[in-house]
Amino acid sequence: MASRFHESFTRDALRSYFAEFISTFFYVLIVIASGMSSRKLMPDASVNPTSLVVGAIANAFALSSVLYIAWDISGGHVNPAVTFAMAVGGHISVPTALFYWIAQLIASVMACFFLRLFLVGMHVPTYSIAEEMTGFGASILEGILTFVLVYTIYAARDTRRGGQQLSSTLVIGLISGASVLAAGPFSGGSINPACAFGSASIAGTFRNQAVYWVGPLIGATVAGLLYDNVLFPSQSLDSIRGVSEVNVRV
Amino acid sequence: MASRFHESFTRDALRSYFAEFISTFFYVLIVIASGMSSRKLMPDASVNPTSLVVGAIANAFALSSVLYIAWDISGGHVNPAVTFAMAVGGHISVPTALFYWIAQLIASVMACFFLRLFLVGMHVPTYSIAEEMTGFGASILEGILTFVLVYTIYAARDTRRGGQQLSSTLVIGLISGASVLAAGPFSGGSINPACAFGSASIAGTFRNQAVYWVGPLIGATVAGLLYDNVLFPSQSLDSIRGVSEVNVRV
Amino acid sequence: MASRFHESFTRDALRSYFAEFISTFFYVLIVIASGMSSRKLMPDASVNPTSLVVGAIANAFALSSVLYIAWDISGGHVNPAVTFAMAVGGHISVPTALFYWIAQLIASVMACFFLRLFLVGMHVPTYSIAEEMTGFGASILEGILTFVLVYTIYAARDTRRGGQQLSSTLVIGLISGASVLAAGPFSGGSINPACAFGSASIAGTFRNQAVYWVGPLIGATVAGLLYDNVLFPSQSLDSIRGVSEVNVRV
Amino acid sequence: MASRFHESFTRDALRSYFAEFISTFFYVLIVIASGMSSRKLMPDASVNPTSLVVGAIANAFALSSVLYIAWDISGGHVNPAVTFAMAVGGHISVPTALFYWIAQLIASVMACFFLRLFLVGMHVPTYSIAEEMTGFGASILEGILTFVLVYTIYAARDTRRGGQQLSSTLVIGLISGASVLAAGPFSGGSINPACAFGSASIAGTFRNQAVYWVGPLIGATVAGLLYDNVLFPSQSLDSIRGVSEVNVRV
Repeated sequence: MASRFHESFTRDALRSYFAEFISTFFYVLIVIASGMSSRKLMPDASVNPTSLVVGAIANAFALSSVLYIAWDISGGHVNPAVTFAMAVGGHISVPTALFYWIAQLIASVMACFFLRLFLVGMHVPTYSIAEEMTGFGASILEGILTFVLVYTIYAARDTRRGGQQLSSTLVIGLISGASVLAAGPFSGGSINPACAFGSASIAGTFRNQAVYWVGPLIGATVAGLLYDNVLFPSQSLDSIRGVSEVNVRV
Repeated sequence: MASRFHESFTRDALRSYFAEFISTFFYVLIVIASGMSSRKLMPDASVNPTSLVVGAIANAFALSSVLYIAWDISGGHVNPAVTFAMAVGGHISVPTALFYWIAQLIASVMACFFLRLFLVGMHVPTYSIAEEMTGFGASILEGILTFVLVYTIYAARDTRRGGQQLSSTLVIGLISGASVLAAGPFSGGSINPACAFGSASIAGTFRNQAVYWVGPLIGATVAGLLYDNVLFPSQSLDSIRGVSEVNVRV
Repeated sequence: MASRFHESFTRDALRSYFAEFISTFFYVLIVIASGMSSRKLMPDASVNPTSLVVGAIANAFALSSVLYIAWDISGGHVNPAVTFAMAVGGHISVPTALFYWIAQLIASVMACFFLRLFLVGMHVPTYSIAEEMTGFGASILEGILTFVLVYTIYAARDTRRGGQQLSSTLVIGLISGASVLAAGPFSGGSINPACAFGSASIAGTFRNQAVYWVGPLIGATVAGLLYDNVLFPSQSLDSIRGVSEVNVRV
Repeated sequence: MASRFHESFTRDALRSYFAEFISTFFYVLIVIASGMSSRKLMPDASVNPTSLVVGAIANAFALSSVLYIAWDISGGHVNPAVTFAMAVGGHISVPTALFYWIAQLIASVMACFFLRLFLVGMHVPTYSIAEEMTGFGASILEGILTFVLVYTIYAARDTRRGGQQLSSTLVIGLISGASVLAAGPFSGGSINPACAFGSASIAGTFRNQAVYWVGPLIGATVAGLLYDNVLFPSQSLDSIRGVSEVNVRV
């Protein structure tokens, strides 16, 4: 245990936290800023389908890229739900997961704070739930979409898969963008608790915050356990690698 | 024959059905939900070109990703027409194909049922045919677009092709998205009988259902036979692999 | 000369023509049909920016996919301007180039005829030139965008380039889609003489047809010669391969 | 020093400048022309979210492709901020960087001049800053988005990273497109000083030009230094290669 805790402070581990910070910062910055772009161009952006396209493309393009730059350093989580599933599945240690969460949440709050600071007079948008949905239903929808996101990440990380690994960060971005199209007008389409947390922190309202944590954490965990134990049961822990192994040797 | 039937119940085969179920569930969920998103944001979404973009992007992004995660397990059909063509071409056995169909259709119905359940007060949209088209013409249009989809899948699966294989699931998703742009306002742009079946089941109307089965099944079969016998005639059956061969060894 | 001519009738050559036919048929079908989709959803589609997005995405997605399926058989031209440049540069023989042209143009006419036949009451749209442009300027714009398309194809075909080759058909599709966004409302954004020819044949008007041939043929040829002689001067003819070499051995 | 200067006039170096010229010319041409397309289709394009989608897709698609064609020749900068960061980090020599800048800026001015010449009666659009932002804030927003662009380019160029390198030009294009969605209505979303310079030159107004240079140059440099010294500290200079090493041997 002590050695596992110690492992969370190696130079490679610190680089991992920093990589998670940078990737999450830019992911949240671009996702939230593109939502503000739509709102600026059209005051009633929340009822306009073009703003849905803007959000989906921003999400897909940004996530593909920020996963790409973090992929060999931190493993490319950029999402507390992914980190949670990896910790439950034993792919990274609990202390390391905590530091990942801290890096992700600070990055998200800072990205939203930056937007508040420099875009004078605009407020940071938060995720909201349509009247067609209950909070329970919204959390299930967010959770089920997090399931497929995490499942895709596990498949992309699996070193036993050959040629298909190469466009891995791209397909993860694409499924995330598709999820925004599916869930955007209903549950908001966060899929990433860090996004919901950062924007809520700066907007100052944590209404429905639990919706964006409970569903995704459960969905992510179920996806990870299913992948490890049912679909690829004999997989060794090294195949989906934790923090210390994924570092590029420098 | 008995051994072929037995082959349909190996552990790898069961994993394949499960992989088809998961991928088809999320594909249909995202495609149908994005259609509902457009409708929620704009009541007359069926006559708005932005909803066409939403549908095409959702289709392309979701299909690329769900094929990616099923690729090494079940071969990544996620479409009864693909399975049909593979069975006719002898790439998978008939019993296995039947179980693929069952997994795909149950997944599609469950995805639509889920949306009906949690999106209170919205109805699940079904595919419909424009007045410019006859049912016959719509089925041909759907069939011809299924042809190019299946042809692309055969090319992507062909192990004799070298470097181009790597972005394979991506191009399959892209041609599917492009087909939505081409056929959406005319025949609906299903291309996938499972999508049409699931939404019709939950909406409770099977009007024109044959359109979305006859054309695509014929188009898919012709594409498969043409690829195997005319364009790449000496191809061994192992090159486009059936269920038992595609499994990652675990 | 006789042997070169004979070379145009080998079994591999015939497969190449067939592959060009299939890919061009589906490319033109999807590009023209998506233009008709926009028009159906909105009568004044020609002045709506969403129709521009529809056209660009259809073009990019379809071209990436149809190049992918023809890549190892015919080399993936799907465009008379590309074939012309390849013939001028000596990468394929003149007789073979002629058969490529015939396959491409018949495919384009058939795709447009198919749409005319099954979409009752809609006319096939043709490319037109905005009042801001002269025919001369439009041809130069089309030609300059064909330049970058062909240049990209040459780079993608160049076997001396290593890892970057893998996503090759994708970037070709992307530059084509971007060209539609750049030139669509001005010169139409054909970039491909086959598209302009097929739609004009069925619509029955060859007005401005020269615009879509002269510029692209010149642009393509300049791009090919520049690539071969200035940027990669010592390149052997085998590096960008002609018809007989690109065939997958079957 | 003399030998480093001499190095800037080798045949490979001249090919590099030419490759930068071609890629920057087409990048700027497509980005600016797509902005003009939106404006033509809708006079108030600057307040329409569809024009934002057009701009983002044009940027992402064009940048992916033009980086692809220059990647093995000049290293694929296509952006004065990238060249600046590479020079500060010692990856290319200062004289070479100057010639890169000259090639990029001439290409940009020529692309805008071409559009002015052939699109009669339309003026070339320039980047502008929304009233919600100060010039200082706009420059920081542009700089921070240039940071992530350059960081992604460094990661893509890093030869120590294995499989993820293959889709490299694609993710760079995607992050650039996402940045347009995030910053377009606020600071204009140039991210590339060459774009801002070329359009301003032809439009004849250099108002706010400093905004598009100061932020991006600083952001790019910080990204490069951080990547080299903090995240991958022991990296040799050869890993992110300068002009002479990246040339394909011909």
